[in-house]
Amino acid sequence: MTGLAFEDLEVGRDYPLGTYAVTREEIVAFAADFDPQPFHLDEAAAADSMFGGLAASGWHTAAMAMRLMYDGVIAGSTAAGGLGVDRLDWRRPVRPGDTLIGRLRVLDKRLSQSRPGFGIVRAEVVVENGDGETVLTMVAPALFGLREAIA
Amino acid sequence: MTGLAFEDLEVGRDYPLGTYAVTREEIVAFAADFDPQPFHLDEAAAADSMFGGLAASGWHTAAMAMRLMYDGVIAGSTAAGGLGVDRLDWRRPVRPGDTLIGRLRVLDKRLSQSRPGFGIVRAEVVVENGDGETVLTMVAPALFGLREAIA
Repeated sequence: MTGLAFEDLEVGRDYPLGTYAVTREEIVAFAADFDPQPFHLDEAAAADSMFGGLAASGWHTAAMAMRLMYDGVIAGSTAAGGLGVDRLDWRRPVRPGDTLIGRLRVLDKRLSQSRPGFGIVRAEVVVENGDGETVLTMVAPALFGLREAIA
Repeated sequence: MTGLAFEDLEVGRDYPLGTYAVTREEIVAFAADFDPQPFHLDEAAAADSMFGGLAASGWHTAAMAMRLMYDGVIAGSTAAGGLGVDRLDWRRPVRPGDTLIGRLRVLDKRLSQSRPGFGIVRAEVVVENGDGETVLTMVAPALFGLREAIA
């Protein structure tokens, strides 16, 4: 529980997001539900694809990034919902056995005009695999409540 | 199985993406795994939130949009992987019992410079709920193989 409110999030600061262990079982289960392309389901098909081996759906990787954000910054905070995605890039395949590690940098923040008591925090998230290679980058705005509005 | 290759995807054309039935069970299960914020897990907490009631994680909605894209365009096509997201917006909450419906419009396409035999197709995806309200919009580029390269 981070307890972070809008006022606490510092522009330019990096927040560590912990780690996420990727399993083959989860890659295949997510893909079966949401993205059943052969290279997310089957090693042999994946070996012949651009991925060169079984790889997580990019939407699965994005969901894992969300979990990293939750654990590192959002849990117990005044976060009130994401507003969208300004940019997202899948830079390398995510593989079974990878341990992902994330960090979040606050790019800028401002008070919401339409929602008194809330502010908009725009953050860049970078997710790397255990070899220090970047697998996902994202820039996204989210609403956070003001501490003063809650108190 | 759409059998679509790069050459077949027509700029400016709308491709229907079928429907996705949203359940409370799936909303809560996805949130428990990837986005356990109270408004995605618990009706009472959600009633007090900006969402005004239980709502799917935006990443869950994005994954459902991926499934709609798979069923409507990607299955059996030469799709070789998504490249990222140029823009994604969550416009309204997605609720238990909603039946989502999607469409995909090809915005532009070009041959890949770095990957001979492939092209990049940029598409806009719009997902609506059963009341005709837009819940998600997205613009994203993806790789498709050329039919002539496969033949």
